[in-house]
Amino acid sequence: MEASQRIENALKATIFAAQAADGPPLLQQALGYAVFPGGARVRPRLTLAVATACGGGCPRLADSAAAAIELLHCASLVHDDLPCFDDASSRRGKPSVHAAYGERIAVLAGDALIVMAFDALAAGGSNAPERMPAVLRIIAAGVGAPNGIVAGQAWECEPSVDLSKYQQSKTGALFAAATMAGAAAADGNPLQWRRLGECLGEAFQVADDLCDVLARTEECGKPVGRDVALDRPSAARELGLPGAVARLKGLIEDALNAVPDCPGRDALQTLLLAESKRFLPKDMAQRAA
Amino acid sequence: MEASQRIENALKATIFAAQAADGPPLLQQALGYAVFPGGARVRPRLTLAVATACGGGCPRLADSAAAAIELLHCASLVHDDLPCFDDASSRRGKPSVHAAYGERIAVLAGDALIVMAFDALAAGGSNAPERMPAVLRIIAAGVGAPNGIVAGQAWECEPSVDLSKYQQSKTGALFAAATMAGAAAADGNPLQWRRLGECLGEAFQVADDLCDVLARTEECGKPVGRDVALDRPSAARELGLPGAVARLKGLIEDALNAVPDCPGRDALQTLLLAESKRFLPKDMAQRAA
Repeated sequence: MEASQRIENALKATIFAAQAADGPPLLQQALGYAVFPGGARVRPRLTLAVATACGGGCPRLADSAAAAIELLHCASLVHDDLPCFDDASSRRGKPSVHAAYGERIAVLAGDALIVMAFDALAAGGSNAPERMPAVLRIIAAGVGAPNGIVAGQAWECEPSVDLSKYQQSKTGALFAAATMAGAAAADGNPLQWRRLGECLGEAFQVADDLCDVLARTEECGKPVGRDVALDRPSAARELGLPGAVARLKGLIEDALNAVPDCPGRDALQTLLLAESKRFLPKDMAQRAA
Repeated sequence: MEASQRIENALKATIFAAQAADGPPLLQQALGYAVFPGGARVRPRLTLAVATACGGGCPRLADSAAAAIELLHCASLVHDDLPCFDDASSRRGKPSVHAAYGERIAVLAGDALIVMAFDALAAGGSNAPERMPAVLRIIAAGVGAPNGIVAGQAWECEPSVDLSKYQQSKTGALFAAATMAGAAAADGNPLQWRRLGECLGEAFQVADDLCDVLARTEECGKPVGRDVALDRPSAARELGLPGAVARLKGLIEDALNAVPDCPGRDALQTLLLAESKRFLPKDMAQRAA
């Protein structure tokens, strides 16, 4: 089965289980709304690509790890969009969860998605119990304190922060978890896969910073110009547009070089190069020049 | 080692790990603030009591399960106190997390505590990997959708709700997870322990409803009179004060009868009876008469 289909199937199974039985209707609707239709599913596809490159390992555990990472990403979007943070009214081309369901349901939906992520992992890992705890701890480290994406968001509450450290937590940590979890679910050594995730995460964040400056709202599906409005650290603001584009190119090169020896190294590099071209649409890159 | 000490040690180890390294200071402080000093630690002590009654099993897994349940409980308090929910300015006799650290850090601290709970479980369960997934799934069911405490809170966002169903999710679900996880960490059959947790959870909630009407703020460490102010379902409002006290007594009796056959049945019943007397202080029960 194709990777994208495996991811959607794993996500659907999890959301369906949470929506079954006699739970509170608004929360249950909001959970589906927050996850479908998805964005590019960049992180879970990365998890499966690394697991495949490492030889496949336990596909069910890899699928669950991929789904868990996407659910945690969706949770972070729901909470980041809250009025007390970005106060974003739209996301993925439709009203954000708090705009559609209210602030209270948005807080709870984010919480429930975090819980569901770990539950999905435990369910999928039950036939590979010797590997599951390591995969779980890798993913938890990518999300929580002291250096996961929650910590990254918390840096926005501090009086000052180093841009690279902020981006490493806010974006890089979950990308690193995505590559490392894919390796741990197959037969790879997770530590060898950290740098690839970190490079891709930073590249993705630089591209996102560029989009925030260059794109029109309809191209992004979310409000643009928010980094300046919210006085957030941003590569585009710190390096200038051409500098940020050069940084993006350098990071993608670093990522390709960071792929360790493994059975599917060449195929993975080809895939990553194609994927990374989607980070920043070509016409936007031209606008930056 | 005494149960209370085991719980505090497990919690301290988890919080310390999240505070180590170079994370964002405000979030890291807020995590410790949300967990220490604790309340009565009713739920984790229940987990350890059931594990002991079942024969002990894997103490490290039981300790981790107990810590995970308390971390999830603390997370729910932090989020329930937010301005969009109870807007509570105090908790456990000090400013609530959002009052002390701001709303953004409170949202993130709750998120991080949820992640830490599952990470602690994976860490403690690494030497009992065949049991850990079951314990994790029990705890996740007690917290998430469709019937855990997050779902319970979400019922407050619905136009109408059945009181018993609301309390079963909002409070009973995590108590049921506490007893079932204790059994699963030892050699018990978790399903046989569900009813005990449900009865104790409902008893605890009825006592809490009574406190909200009867107590003075300094007795509770949190604002009182909130159920009426927020138009929340409450046993005291629905049954009247004497009716609610009678219901509390009946539930405690049901709980004692629900303890299944196990090596430490008598000792557990004695312990539960003593514990349940602390749910509603005697002078408050007299005020209700």
